[in-house]
Amino acid sequence: MDHTDCPSPNGLPDSVRLVAPSLEAYTDRVLLGGVWKRPQLSVRDRSLITLSVLVARNQSERLPYYVDMALDNDVKASELSGLITHLAFYSGWANAIAATEIVQPVFARRGIGAAALATPDAEPFPLDQTGEQRRHTVTSRKFGELAPGLVQLTHEVLFQDLWLQPELTPRDRCLVTISSVIATAQTAQLAFYLNRALDHGVTRAELSELMTHIAFYSGWSSVFTALGVVKDVFEGRPD
Amino acid sequence: MDHTDCPSPNGLPDSVRLVAPSLEAYTDRVLLGGVWKRPQLSVRDRSLITLSVLVARNQSERLPYYVDMALDNDVKASELSGLITHLAFYSGWANAIAATEIVQPVFARRGIGAAALATPDAEPFPLDQTGEQRRHTVTSRKFGELAPGLVQLTHEVLFQDLWLQPELTPRDRCLVTISSVIATAQTAQLAFYLNRALDHGVTRAELSELMTHIAFYSGWSSVFTALGVVKDVFEGRPD
Amino acid sequence: MDHTDCPSPNGLPDSVRLVAPSLEAYTDRVLLGGVWKRPQLSVRDRSLITLSVLVARNQSERLPYYVDMALDNDVKASELSGLITHLAFYSGWANAIAATEIVQPVFARRGIGAAALATPDAEPFPLDQTGEQRRHTVTSRKFGELAPGLVQLTHEVLFQDLWLQPELTPRDRCLVTISSVIATAQTAQLAFYLNRALDHGVTRAELSELMTHIAFYSGWSSVFTALGVVKDVFEGRPD
Repeated sequence: MDHTDCPSPNGLPDSVRLVAPSLEAYTDRVLLGGVWKRPQLSVRDRSLITLSVLVARNQSERLPYYVDMALDNDVKASELSGLITHLAFYSGWANAIAATEIVQPVFARRGIGAAALATPDAEPFPLDQTGEQRRHTVTSRKFGELAPGLVQLTHEVLFQDLWLQPELTPRDRCLVTISSVIATAQTAQLAFYLNRALDHGVTRAELSELMTHIAFYSGWSSVFTALGVVKDVFEGRPD
Repeated sequence: MDHTDCPSPNGLPDSVRLVAPSLEAYTDRVLLGGVWKRPQLSVRDRSLITLSVLVARNQSERLPYYVDMALDNDVKASELSGLITHLAFYSGWANAIAATEIVQPVFARRGIGAAALATPDAEPFPLDQTGEQRRHTVTSRKFGELAPGLVQLTHEVLFQDLWLQPELTPRDRCLVTISSVIATAQTAQLAFYLNRALDHGVTRAELSELMTHIAFYSGWSSVFTALGVVKDVFEGRPD
Repeated sequence: MDHTDCPSPNGLPDSVRLVAPSLEAYTDRVLLGGVWKRPQLSVRDRSLITLSVLVARNQSERLPYYVDMALDNDVKASELSGLITHLAFYSGWANAIAATEIVQPVFARRGIGAAALATPDAEPFPLDQTGEQRRHTVTSRKFGELAPGLVQLTHEVLFQDLWLQPELTPRDRCLVTISSVIATAQTAQLAFYLNRALDHGVTRAELSELMTHIAFYSGWSSVFTALGVVKDVFEGRPD
């Protein structure tokens, strides 16, 4: 049975009703009818966060539903494309490739072809030379002798290439990265990306709401581990 | 080939014998013929722990085998239903929905319909008002300003709703949560749920045996990380 | 469409081109055309590391491609078999069983039968009695009272049985274990296995390059978390 054709407005497959009916009730009342309607984050941003968790955690079953949700709520196909490429680096190449296999039929169904993904005249975003040089210097001091190849790739490919690609804004890349880091239990890396997000115009209120939203997709425990880091980052900033 | 119809008593698909024959030997001798027969934990409890890891880690291939194991060993269908809903919150909504798709054919094969899942006259478990108020106050102090939505959902939906639902006892929910926390590398949250388990009548011996059992499903490294927390919790309690 | 028959030399399914074309560019230029060609680690070792991440993270889509890569680059079928069994213990039984189901058709296509997996005259590797007794004593002091079953299984089955099986050398088992530990965010266990690797002849340069390689499969965040541990281990050794 093709569950993506399930006529249910909540997009749940029949199996939920047949196996865990209380899960359907929570989905309608608390999640889709509750959290998704809170004003503190747009549905667009919620879609980016949710998709990031699904890709980072290789959770293919829900991916088509939330791809439709994203494309119906101001996420461009080229941005979704950028999200997947971004997560190849942050959650693992295999997760991203597997995600393209799930997304491709959704694109086909929606008539999204190569033209929709192309951004031929788009310029890369500008590089904050000073900021990146500072980051690279710190990283080089810590790990330059230990893993010079990785440090160089981080400088050249990650922060001077991937992060500047026009498909997805740096602001959105911050949301995607933070979601992936939380979903994959990489708490030690969270502070860096929280600060990066705040530097790129994500508000404290939006980051707080990201935590509330992501609890449902990454699991309650993952969020409480992350909250301590968020608190430290907020308290450590003058702005 | 439908591996769930594999006649092998150990439930392994033919591919194990064809690709990793030593794995079959370890499965028979050490796991199914060894750990599962240890008296320190019932087969029922072992089933709950194993299923929780499989759902939390999105490991669908083994899920039918262990669903049958659970239902054959004193886990009610309604309890399994409760386990899945519980893990929607603790390991992520998508994991739980995907699990229902795998479980639904097993239920169908076993003639488990809506009636088996319904607990119409069952009352929610009683709320420990004082304990939950204390927990909520501590959490609010730490994170109430940072993420008020999450703190409120934790108080209203998680601990005053989900945890009290009659489908699954609080004791069993503790086993499920601990298993999920270990399987998803959320060590920072483990102490709280170990204490909760001991408060709900899980014995120290049962928790120790949970660690031995879960090593096979969550991986040896995950358990040694968790053991340090278990030791600290045990040493910190007067009982 | 059977993507494993995709004629593309980079082995990518068509969906990558149709959904995330920039991912194809990075794959060709940075990953397969870049990192995989660096001389600091053999393609054989890179294959072991990559396969370990895929199995530990249940990433089945890329598994056939990298199984072919491994078998084409000096990984014997019996070694691949040993890798899967090893990861049953280190990343969870279900991951290993699921991996055999994906690998079995690749073996069939390549005419790899039971004879290729058998090592009938091979002796187990010798046990370092003193080293294992020391490790067992330390572990027993820490956790012997808490989880005697697990401590005994670790001594008897893990280090005196699995690690000595002739299918896969102890050196290779170190690479497999380290990769699994990083991929599953079990940073607390990493130092032990880094030291074990250095004791078994893996060089510092190889471990550093493992970090660069694994970033692409386990995700950038997982590696930066691990690098701090690597640095501490290197600085703590006289050799």
